[in-house]
Amino acid sequence: MTLPTQVKIVEVGPRDGLQNEVAVPTAAKIALINQLSETGLSVIESASFVSPKWVPQMADSSEVMAQISRRAGITYSALTPNLKGYELARQVNTDEVAVFGAASEAFTQKNINCSIDESLQRFAPVLEQAKADGVSVRGYVSCVLGCPYQGDVPLADVVKVAKALYQMGCYEISLGDTIGVGTPLAAQKMLTAVAEHIPMANLALHFHNTYGQALANISACLPLGVSIIDSAVAGLGGCPYAKGASGNVASEDVVYMLQGMGIECGVDLTKLAAAGREICQHLGHGPRSQVALALQAKEDN
Amino acid sequence: MTLPTQVKIVEVGPRDGLQNEVAVPTAAKIALINQLSETGLSVIESASFVSPKWVPQMADSSEVMAQISRRAGITYSALTPNLKGYELARQVNTDEVAVFGAASEAFTQKNINCSIDESLQRFAPVLEQAKADGVSVRGYVSCVLGCPYQGDVPLADVVKVAKALYQMGCYEISLGDTIGVGTPLAAQKMLTAVAEHIPMANLALHFHNTYGQALANISACLPLGVSIIDSAVAGLGGCPYAKGASGNVASEDVVYMLQGMGIECGVDLTKLAAAGREICQHLGHGPRSQVALALQAKEDN
Repeated sequence: MTLPTQVKIVEVGPRDGLQNEVAVPTAAKIALINQLSETGLSVIESASFVSPKWVPQMADSSEVMAQISRRAGITYSALTPNLKGYELARQVNTDEVAVFGAASEAFTQKNINCSIDESLQRFAPVLEQAKADGVSVRGYVSCVLGCPYQGDVPLADVVKVAKALYQMGCYEISLGDTIGVGTPLAAQKMLTAVAEHIPMANLALHFHNTYGQALANISACLPLGVSIIDSAVAGLGGCPYAKGASGNVASEDVVYMLQGMGIECGVDLTKLAAAGREICQHLGHGPRSQVALALQAKEDN
Repeated sequence: MTLPTQVKIVEVGPRDGLQNEVAVPTAAKIALINQLSETGLSVIESASFVSPKWVPQMADSSEVMAQISRRAGITYSALTPNLKGYELARQVNTDEVAVFGAASEAFTQKNINCSIDESLQRFAPVLEQAKADGVSVRGYVSCVLGCPYQGDVPLADVVKVAKALYQMGCYEISLGDTIGVGTPLAAQKMLTAVAEHIPMANLALHFHNTYGQALANISACLPLGVSIIDSAVAGLGGCPYAKGASGNVASEDVVYMLQGMGIECGVDLTKLAAAGREICQHLGHGPRSQVALALQAKEDN
């Protein structure tokens, strides 16, 4: 049991967050990413090059990537489900791309109408082209602690998909509790199983806070040595139509916890919370971050 | 490191929760406690016999205790800061009482205008009378992970107050992160220090979720063997005037986590969430429980 001394936060608010909120103006996205760039974050997932038919919230991804003010040392990444998306992403100088698999057969069928194996084959051209271009690819595995369609997801399936993506060339594998149903022991067990096949240094946790468990799950996994955490400023995400439904674990809450534990992540909490408050003005709800709310309440007093 | 197989939940919503919300009608409190009695909870802190000048929300404590429908096997407890409160509580058959100390010198001065040592002396008559009557007394220690006035609270002060209350006759010591600033390592360190002097079986965690850390802190402490958790249905509490400020950790979220970890607590989550939703109709805000919100969203779909 060794806590990491440093953790890399992968900020997914502008992508995984905003794709699950009501659509916001392009200028607001750009302002958000520019503000996040000033907080000390080193990776900002900024866009998604998917069909606007399926995800209209991300239809302006090319404009966003073209117009943000880039800061040296920050990786601005985007989701690219296929070669077409990859090419669009590269046209606007996306630094790093990501592909998105699921550990659940039922989820894969419902979501993209094919089997897990077929879905992996679809990524192959993206990984080949990225390799040729010298572009790093991140691999997501969703539904690692449960699936909205099939319920339980066998650990063996999580390991299989994570391993496949890693072997295909993804340098980092992000393990997603997409529906936020996991609890600490399950999270530890899952991470341990995957870490038998992929170095811990290449694994990230991507937990959603739907049932309030995300921070407890992250905290339970830190002593296993995991050092990459995905989170979204203001807890962006969830579902645009479910009142109060929580999305990604809030970056503010993760940063507060890490700082309290003496784990370095290089992020300025005050600036981060300010960025979260500003984007929320476009969303019709306040930050879904307890830290953001607590800091606000302190200021108001 | 041994996880407990069973955890006792001490439901503090009707007291610690509602005393920090806008006042609700007496009938609503009684309905809440009656509903909670049907969930499988074994301890419900139901009232507070403090001066109504200071805590007007609790002015109807005698009526509440007199009118609830008691269920065999459940302990209905109340806060009694002094002998007068104790006598009022006993007149309406309060099963168990509690006294409330703080580990912070500054907090004690600001809150009750005396030193920690003086505050402990004030509890002595309550403990003596309770002993003579064969009534169990719980001891709270607040500010165990931080204080709104002095900031850091030395571990030695937490240990001193916890030990004093235990030696004076409190059978159970509840360790309160009153302002919710703690993080997992600090929580573990604090619990470990206190457990060197008081058996772990007599220690409870009472964590607030102000900075979103409560569940992570509880989860971090469970492997140390702690088996009593204070929580409030719907996350009641916080501050009646601070928008979105979180109070006690939500009982629903704690129960969900424990069930996911295979730790028995005997509570029916569906009934618990229903009780939380009902009381929130009197509060002008929804449940501050992610589990409650997630269950509601599922029902609505």
